[in-house]
Amino acid sequence: MNSPASLRERLYILVFQSDTTAGRRFDKALLLIILASLVVVILDSIDEVHQNYSGLLAAIEWGFTAIFLAEYLTRLYCSPKPLRYAFSFYGLVDLLAIVPGIIALYYSDAQYLLIIRVIRMLRIFRVLKLSPYLKQANYLMSALRGSKQKIIVFLVSVSTLVTVFGTLMYVVEGPEHGFTSIPKGIYWAIVTLTTVGFGDIVPKTPLGQVLSSLVMITGYSIIAVPTGIFTAELANAMRGEQLRHDCPNCHKGTHGHDAAFCSRCGHALFGKRD
Amino acid sequence: MNSPASLRERLYILVFQSDTTAGRRFDKALLLIILASLVVVILDSIDEVHQNYSGLLAAIEWGFTAIFLAEYLTRLYCSPKPLRYAFSFYGLVDLLAIVPGIIALYYSDAQYLLIIRVIRMLRIFRVLKLSPYLKQANYLMSALRGSKQKIIVFLVSVSTLVTVFGTLMYVVEGPEHGFTSIPKGIYWAIVTLTTVGFGDIVPKTPLGQVLSSLVMITGYSIIAVPTGIFTAELANAMRGEQLRHDCPNCHKGTHGHDAAFCSRCGHALFGKRD
Amino acid sequence: MNSPASLRERLYILVFQSDTTAGRRFDKALLLIILASLVVVILDSIDEVHQNYSGLLAAIEWGFTAIFLAEYLTRLYCSPKPLRYAFSFYGLVDLLAIVPGIIALYYSDAQYLLIIRVIRMLRIFRVLKLSPYLKQANYLMSALRGSKQKIIVFLVSVSTLVTVFGTLMYVVEGPEHGFTSIPKGIYWAIVTLTTVGFGDIVPKTPLGQVLSSLVMITGYSIIAVPTGIFTAELANAMRGEQLRHDCPNCHKGTHGHDAAFCSRCGHALFGKRD
Amino acid sequence: MNSPASLRERLYILVFQSDTTAGRRFDKALLLIILASLVVVILDSIDEVHQNYSGLLAAIEWGFTAIFLAEYLTRLYCSPKPLRYAFSFYGLVDLLAIVPGIIALYYSDAQYLLIIRVIRMLRIFRVLKLSPYLKQANYLMSALRGSKQKIIVFLVSVSTLVTVFGTLMYVVEGPEHGFTSIPKGIYWAIVTLTTVGFGDIVPKTPLGQVLSSLVMITGYSIIAVPTGIFTAELANAMRGEQLRHDCPNCHKGTHGHDAAFCSRCGHALFGKRD
Repeated sequence: MNSPASLRERLYILVFQSDTTAGRRFDKALLLIILASLVVVILDSIDEVHQNYSGLLAAIEWGFTAIFLAEYLTRLYCSPKPLRYAFSFYGLVDLLAIVPGIIALYYSDAQYLLIIRVIRMLRIFRVLKLSPYLKQANYLMSALRGSKQKIIVFLVSVSTLVTVFGTLMYVVEGPEHGFTSIPKGIYWAIVTLTTVGFGDIVPKTPLGQVLSSLVMITGYSIIAVPTGIFTAELANAMRGEQLRHDCPNCHKGTHGHDAAFCSRCGHALFGKRD
Repeated sequence: MNSPASLRERLYILVFQSDTTAGRRFDKALLLIILASLVVVILDSIDEVHQNYSGLLAAIEWGFTAIFLAEYLTRLYCSPKPLRYAFSFYGLVDLLAIVPGIIALYYSDAQYLLIIRVIRMLRIFRVLKLSPYLKQANYLMSALRGSKQKIIVFLVSVSTLVTVFGTLMYVVEGPEHGFTSIPKGIYWAIVTLTTVGFGDIVPKTPLGQVLSSLVMITGYSIIAVPTGIFTAELANAMRGEQLRHDCPNCHKGTHGHDAAFCSRCGHALFGKRD
Repeated sequence: MNSPASLRERLYILVFQSDTTAGRRFDKALLLIILASLVVVILDSIDEVHQNYSGLLAAIEWGFTAIFLAEYLTRLYCSPKPLRYAFSFYGLVDLLAIVPGIIALYYSDAQYLLIIRVIRMLRIFRVLKLSPYLKQANYLMSALRGSKQKIIVFLVSVSTLVTVFGTLMYVVEGPEHGFTSIPKGIYWAIVTLTTVGFGDIVPKTPLGQVLSSLVMITGYSIIAVPTGIFTAELANAMRGEQLRHDCPNCHKGTHGHDAAFCSRCGHALFGKRD
Repeated sequence: MNSPASLRERLYILVFQSDTTAGRRFDKALLLIILASLVVVILDSIDEVHQNYSGLLAAIEWGFTAIFLAEYLTRLYCSPKPLRYAFSFYGLVDLLAIVPGIIALYYSDAQYLLIIRVIRMLRIFRVLKLSPYLKQANYLMSALRGSKQKIIVFLVSVSTLVTVFGTLMYVVEGPEHGFTSIPKGIYWAIVTLTTVGFGDIVPKTPLGQVLSSLVMITGYSIIAVPTGIFTAELANAMRGEQLRHDCPNCHKGTHGHDAAFCSRCGHALFGKRD
């Protein structure tokens, strides 16, 4: 940083890195622009707004596309390995954020482009990374990673449950009460088990209502499972550490959190008191 | 308290402080009056009541406004720094609780005044403060404070999720199934992710129902995240009243809150014992 | 128990106590009869059943009333202090379980009697008390007792929240969208905050939907609070105990769960190792 | 495995065991076939698919039945104790997966066979058993087992609650608002207490709405109970792999799982060190 740097190198630091003040400011500005372009897309989807301001919004959208194009070309220019950037995840997302905007100049039916810009919002995590939020996010990630296997077991059980109950409800209630097929029954079972309960399909027969009650109480009870898994893992991640101290006698390196004596050789860990 | 005090000083202690019996009684009486005035406003919003008793209720409301005015003037009179009180949070709320009542004498369309009186109910925390509830509220607050950053990470992720899913549902289901705009889609995504599930907008297409199932299972699973965060922090806060001090000998970092010697190695925590 | 006992004494042990085999069997039989009488009441409430079997069900119900009357008189007879029993909680409930049955002989509109019999089901806890479930129920009760104050703070906050949001929704949405009064708004706020979401009243205006989203996300997040409170208390109740051991030097009686040395005088708690 | 084995023995290892590569591959292939047959059943339940492809789907279904029949006969052939297999849980399920398929050749109304094939999916746990998921599933199971009694206490309380509230709502709201019988009221109470909230039956009277609010807040609060129970047990199960053995000197009851000496007092855990 204290050696003279070419424009390309300074651009690289500004555009790609976020540990300088300028780089962080650049990332924040970019996020604001992405957010603004999303707001324009969202506003454009509202019928009244579209009918009155579609011209204005299209112009603004065009401006954002130009900005993103300029940004993309800058990234290509200053990147030490342009091809590697172009085919990286972020590179492809950056490209996909521009292409539909250009296509939309010729085909106005470009409402699908909006989804891609939302993906760009993932950059927000780059900004967060550089803040004290990193450590907290890490706790959460390590708790999630630690509970991955338990969550898979849980999801497999839930999938089996909704399949069984969805099929049973299809058989019991039948098409005349809205359970027109097994997939519909499974959809209903998910709606019910997760305690969402839209009410678009509801059981009408007594047996169906008994089965529903079973699904609901199951759903209400097993909500404890992911919560319990995650809480236990998070408490682990936050407390977690063992005492790292070499036993003076046998050199065992880790001990229980509160150990006074080595559990392998019985030697006092911190010198005899006399 | 054992020195002779002027009326103003005695009023000040009565009205502003709540550590004397009289002061606490004053606060409780005030809360009851606020509650009563809220009940009157609530009753007045019911159509049948309004048609039969609107005159009576208006009179009672007028009485409450008079009481609050008298209270406000007393506070101004006995406060050592009247201006500071007048522009403090509570001072402004106290004023706002009177003004609409006076305006309502001329313009009867004063139904909005009620919200402001609800804010006055915040005084209930002053009364609670003086009770054993304080310590418990503190535990809760410190757990919330400790999990603030994690909760922001969580809320950012949830916001991204509902935007992505709301947009997808708008594209997939379209206006003919109630998803008339992206904001409506986001509203639906929030209704579904939080497992509320009003059922005013529901997916009709198979793809929409598959996406909904995804949203519901996500919502059902990530309810674990705030719970886990909060539980782990609360357990910390409740255990946590520990002495944080490194043992000079073994570097154990936390000790019982009245510890003089390290419970692990027996070394004096604060200076050598001889 | 090994002394000869009069009929009255033996009846007392059978009817009031549940630590003998016979007493437990009596309690279980009573529970089954109460349950059967509840099932009869429930069946009688179904229209088709009522139209076809109302005579039969009334006769059975009459039989149950006779049994309960006999039981009540027995209790009065064998109780050492009949008046004390008659005015105790269980005594009044036992009486209330009979009276409506007798009244129903003259006035057939006795559908309200059923609620009272349900209260008798509370006896199930007497049976449970005598089983290994007691210890588990105790854990739950002590966790609930420990979190009582925190839960009151929580419920006060929730009440304030639903009042504020219910009023706001009444003002924003108005009677034309189903929010006909503030109490209705508060009812809607409770339905939404608890994530039940019936969908009988739903916001129609954009501002109302934004407010609703706020309520839902709040409700979804604060579900963590009671869970966190209860989990932390339960973990406390289950782990809970401190080391009870007199320090040989200073006689401090309780120590941290893993203490090797007294935290007050630094003396080794369990004798020197040599 | 290194001794020469007959075809029957090799088949046995392939079909019944899953600790060889081939056996595991066989189990996975079988799971895929079961899954495929389920997908066919599910697709056949969709009206449009049934009308256009019912012939094709029936043929495929017939093929799956043939495969399952061949598998069943192979299992019978290579099992050392064919009768014991035939009457075991898995043996009966395997048979039940074939029979309806054969009956369906004569009676086309065989939509109920699907449920039985779903039960075969339980084999997925045999595959999971052989993976690192086993340990995680064990944690979950031991947490569930540990909380069984608490959960029974909880379920008994919930049952009492929904009976009481269901009856009250039936009395208060009556048949004209959808509460046509007490069982319906109980069904509504379950829908509401579990925060599902279909909205097919909703309270209309003010008193009914007050009662509903009570049910909802109760449901919202007691969701903490199973979560708390499960979390505390799971944390126990995860920490818990500790050595349970009283130290002969200080009576510390739990130790690190490979401890030879007490970490609190340094005394040898199993016999004197000299």
